[in-house]
Amino acid sequence: MSDLLITGGTVITVDEEGQIFDPGVIAVRGDEILYVGPAGGELPPYWKPQRVINAENKLVLPGLVNSHTHAAMVLFRGNGDDLSLQEWLENKIWPLENKLSAEAVYWGTLLAIAEMFLSGITAFADMYFFPDAIARAVAESGIRAAIAPGLLGISPDSATRLREAISFCQEWNGAAGGRVTTMLGPHAPYTCPPEYLAQSLAAARDIEVGIHIHLAETETEIRGIKDQYGVSPVAYLCRQDLSNVHILAAHCVHLEDADIDLLSQNNINVVHNPGSNLKLASGIAPVPRLLTAGIPVALGTDGAASNNNLDILEEARLVALIHKGYTGQPTVIPAEEALKMATANGAAALGLKRKCGRLKAGMKADLILIDRQQPHLYPRFNPLSALIYSARSSDVDTVIVNGEIVVERGELCTLDGEKIMHMAERQARKLLQ
Amino acid sequence: MSDLLITGGTVITVDEEGQIFDPGVIAVRGDEILYVGPAGGELPPYWKPQRVINAENKLVLPGLVNSHTHAAMVLFRGNGDDLSLQEWLENKIWPLENKLSAEAVYWGTLLAIAEMFLSGITAFADMYFFPDAIARAVAESGIRAAIAPGLLGISPDSATRLREAISFCQEWNGAAGGRVTTMLGPHAPYTCPPEYLAQSLAAARDIEVGIHIHLAETETEIRGIKDQYGVSPVAYLCRQDLSNVHILAAHCVHLEDADIDLLSQNNINVVHNPGSNLKLASGIAPVPRLLTAGIPVALGTDGAASNNNLDILEEARLVALIHKGYTGQPTVIPAEEALKMATANGAAALGLKRKCGRLKAGMKADLILIDRQQPHLYPRFNPLSALIYSARSSDVDTVIVNGEIVVERGELCTLDGEKIMHMAERQARKLLQ
Repeated sequence: MSDLLITGGTVITVDEEGQIFDPGVIAVRGDEILYVGPAGGELPPYWKPQRVINAENKLVLPGLVNSHTHAAMVLFRGNGDDLSLQEWLENKIWPLENKLSAEAVYWGTLLAIAEMFLSGITAFADMYFFPDAIARAVAESGIRAAIAPGLLGISPDSATRLREAISFCQEWNGAAGGRVTTMLGPHAPYTCPPEYLAQSLAAARDIEVGIHIHLAETETEIRGIKDQYGVSPVAYLCRQDLSNVHILAAHCVHLEDADIDLLSQNNINVVHNPGSNLKLASGIAPVPRLLTAGIPVALGTDGAASNNNLDILEEARLVALIHKGYTGQPTVIPAEEALKMATANGAAALGLKRKCGRLKAGMKADLILIDRQQPHLYPRFNPLSALIYSARSSDVDTVIVNGEIVVERGELCTLDGEKIMHMAERQARKLLQ
Repeated sequence: MSDLLITGGTVITVDEEGQIFDPGVIAVRGDEILYVGPAGGELPPYWKPQRVINAENKLVLPGLVNSHTHAAMVLFRGNGDDLSLQEWLENKIWPLENKLSAEAVYWGTLLAIAEMFLSGITAFADMYFFPDAIARAVAESGIRAAIAPGLLGISPDSATRLREAISFCQEWNGAAGGRVTTMLGPHAPYTCPPEYLAQSLAAARDIEVGIHIHLAETETEIRGIKDQYGVSPVAYLCRQDLSNVHILAAHCVHLEDADIDLLSQNNINVVHNPGSNLKLASGIAPVPRLLTAGIPVALGTDGAASNNNLDILEEARLVALIHKGYTGQPTVIPAEEALKMATANGAAALGLKRKCGRLKAGMKADLILIDRQQPHLYPRFNPLSALIYSARSSDVDTVIVNGEIVVERGELCTLDGEKIMHMAERQARKLLQ
């Protein structure tokens, strides 16, 4: 990790004032941002960079955050599309997941990280099985992640699993130079009875980690929870003691007005997954209403088995497009808002609001450079519009996490992509046997 | 143009049987496909390729077709987003279009073609002003296009413009080795009174070209035409004599059942523009119902000012995703159907059904290679799923139009990208002055 000076680019800070410096300068010392400002701005006189990165013709912005995924599910990519949710889960996904091993999850997670790095993602929130294998992949690769072991309250070994998850969280929280953080992952209202959810929340409060949960994803879930408990899934969660626990709630597709009030009152971080919700026909979340209510909605890809990629720039475009079409309002979710959802709101959802998601002195150096010198990004007018409505994740040129360059000129620096593709495919084929 | 043999790839033919050869072989003689089949298939003994292209780890498929665009509008990309349709048109687009010149349209069209080539697009249907400038750009670049001069029946010089358009069509139809074809472009029902539409149709029939028209795009249009003529825009068009005229109708967002019947009875080629319809909040077209009615819906990007790119692979993903979410049916528009819309149905919309859009002996050699050796396309299960749900247009490695290689290893072969970006930006800045 060497001290970096990034000069000549269009710096989109995503800070509270939405400042853009064109051209701008960023100084990175170790794993932190030392300075962000206009070209010619005053850098500390005692500081000398070891390396200067020329960002001419490039956009410089905070790293993208994938705030809800099951990374290792890349192993199932393309193995079950265009099916109904029940058929997909029961005949494709669950039988494969029953055969999972730590080794499969390790290689699957590395494949996912390789893909995410090349798409400009610097941090992700994961919920899956074999969390030690996930954490190993995260630590080795250089990415940042909030890892939650998935917990099914209805499974016979649910108590053991919760104990193991608590140990995992305590062991790994803050590991890998702070890049690994942990959460508990009670899967969803329909798989976690009230007592189990209460135990998970109490444990999370006790060991000071957050909760990552699926919430109000499908109409089937809404009906089921209402039938069983007489309330909506959001109300079901909010009947619990949520005090002093950071909550990341993925999906939140089917919401009544009262649910939106509850999400807001309880400071729940909502993660919208437009691609997955469309592909599985779960529905279209009321994102404009959530934003109006002041909820800082973040973006997730969900697992690659229901997406089928891990591309937050694509999700940012989707969120900016579909809600215009769906509400009939071409002004909802402008480019700036979509970018905030993909960066600052994502960091907040991961519980890293003060650590990353914006380009500001004192924040961790998680940032990306996007190559603008391409026909589909010409002419060069509004950089925010170019990013959200025209760019592709393949335009990502450089990716820096915690001050370390992990992608340069579109090539992986910390991972052996060829080996990972080979090993992950081998694991996937083994599961399919 | 040299005779080519493409070997080792996964060949997705998009033929009537949906055949996939893995690995497969394609032989190209001059501008035509001589043979498509499994590896080891019998090639004509007298034929020897001048060049062999190794397509290992690649998908080989028909070139993508952008069936409705205004190519030169790339000049306005990013200059007016997140606005209401009226504000966008009246305050941004129309004032800029009033200042257009042949030179601006020429450089704008070249920029659009550079972008389309790099995204795997081998043919497009254009409707815009200064058609000679468009045709020059098409002829020089090597792309295939059906060019329609835009005609506004309500403008004072509409008769002159129609005469000029007829001359253009006659002069250019079949030019550039058959790559240029022409249509007349009466803009829309709300800009073309019945008499003008009748004159355009009669002229098209007379000189044997098709018609390219916007149809039923917004609710405002539906209300306006109903108020003025007492019928829907589709019925308004179909009251005309449409016999022996090929019709390409873009958008078709707001349709009653009777409209769908009319479109089907009159063999009208519908072009769906999901990105533009979402961004301008025009609405969501009833594509599953159109397909059920047997209408071979094609895909378009519309102009880059309302999209904001010319990426048919993105439109194919959008069409496969949004209609699942919107109808609640995860099985509608599977990957195979989306690919057909982006290729064979596009060729049909351009009036080139027997010329391109499928990989078959006797068709023109318009085809692309997609690089599968990338993390986001692993593991390698279903190639159709990989293409529609996981790939990006930047995965396009090689593009061949009419037997000529126009993109190789992701680089333009027939166009000077740097010069075009520079000149197009200069033209755009001039318009903005």
